[in-house]
Amino acid sequence: MSEPAERLGADVGAGTTDRRLLRGAQTRQTIARYAADVASLEGLNGLSIGRLATDLGLSKSGVQTLFGTKERLQVAAVESARAAFLDAVVHPASSAPRGVARLRALTERWIAYVEAPLFPGGCFWTANLADFDSRPGKVRDALVGHHRDWLGAITGELQEAVHTGEIADLDVDLAAFQIDAVLTAANIALRLGDNDAADKARRVVDGFLTPAR
Amino acid sequence: MSEPAERLGADVGAGTTDRRLLRGAQTRQTIARYAADVASLEGLNGLSIGRLATDLGLSKSGVQTLFGTKERLQVAAVESARAAFLDAVVHPASSAPRGVARLRALTERWIAYVEAPLFPGGCFWTANLADFDSRPGKVRDALVGHHRDWLGAITGELQEAVHTGEIADLDVDLAAFQIDAVLTAANIALRLGDNDAADKARRVVDGFLTPAR
Repeated sequence: MSEPAERLGADVGAGTTDRRLLRGAQTRQTIARYAADVASLEGLNGLSIGRLATDLGLSKSGVQTLFGTKERLQVAAVESARAAFLDAVVHPASSAPRGVARLRALTERWIAYVEAPLFPGGCFWTANLADFDSRPGKVRDALVGHHRDWLGAITGELQEAVHTGEIADLDVDLAAFQIDAVLTAANIALRLGDNDAADKARRVVDGFLTPAR
Repeated sequence: MSEPAERLGADVGAGTTDRRLLRGAQTRQTIARYAADVASLEGLNGLSIGRLATDLGLSKSGVQTLFGTKERLQVAAVESARAAFLDAVVHPASSAPRGVARLRALTERWIAYVEAPLFPGGCFWTANLADFDSRPGKVRDALVGHHRDWLGAITGELQEAVHTGEIADLDVDLAAFQIDAVLTAANIALRLGDNDAADKARRVVDGFLTPAR
């Protein structure tokens, strides 16, 4: 199925179509990124097409045309949040050598992502996974898919570190579960004013990175 | 300030006042407990006086009289959730001897609380703390107060176990932070279908309870 913006431009000249398509895609991105910010604060359920249109000075019908349903808007917000997260956390860490160095880079980037913060409400997934864990559907699938990838990234670096003998053997799934859990807890603790939370998370991660004897 | 139910009954005979007061208090408790169930699924922001009245077959004006504002309704839901949590988790565990046994009882009761579950959306605080961490006010204070007490309970049993030499010395604050973090992560993982999550949490707790040599 073609995008609404594409269908909108179907009856005009090619140059105009290209520009309209581009403008539609850019507007869609801008709205989705803003929606991710709002959802980090108020949850994906707080999103409404009318509210976003008002906040961004756009027409409600225009936003409606770009997204269609609230669910598609929510999924677009999750995808936008994921792209921003990959740019802020995962891609920069990929320049570090695999194993311990990359795991440290991933956790440091993650801590910066919630301390800076990238989204005004802190971790986008912490704010929304707890809301959507009981609601099957495309929004939950998008949230869960990202969370699984993130856990997979941590597990992968731990496996690499064990495999190359960089760290002592350990249960990588359990360690990844714990690292993700303390990072998530640190996000909430930081937002509640516990300035020690990031260091607690670092100390837990360090605990898993003991060099093999 | 007197409760609305009390003020309502001020101009009638004493026997009638007592009955009305009792009935008002019972209705208020029933509504608050139902509100906690709804909030575990949809978040405290999903609560509305009109919706609760419809669901429970009460008049909107009656519910309005009992709670007044949405914020008071939200705080009442948190207090009701706290009372239910204390009854299900903390009070039963208090029959176990202090230290390791009570910490195990607390964590087992906690796992049962989310596996059963006590609230249809799983852990009430996981569902709501992430939403309210960015919103100062009475609702956040009520949520945070409970969470601090829960962390305090874990810390207290760890301290006791270290103090009596039951377990090796450790950083009790960091250990309590980790135990709380993995329980919270287990709640979400369980709701997303990871049946291994409760065992992961148990293994983490066990890791802290190594007997002192």
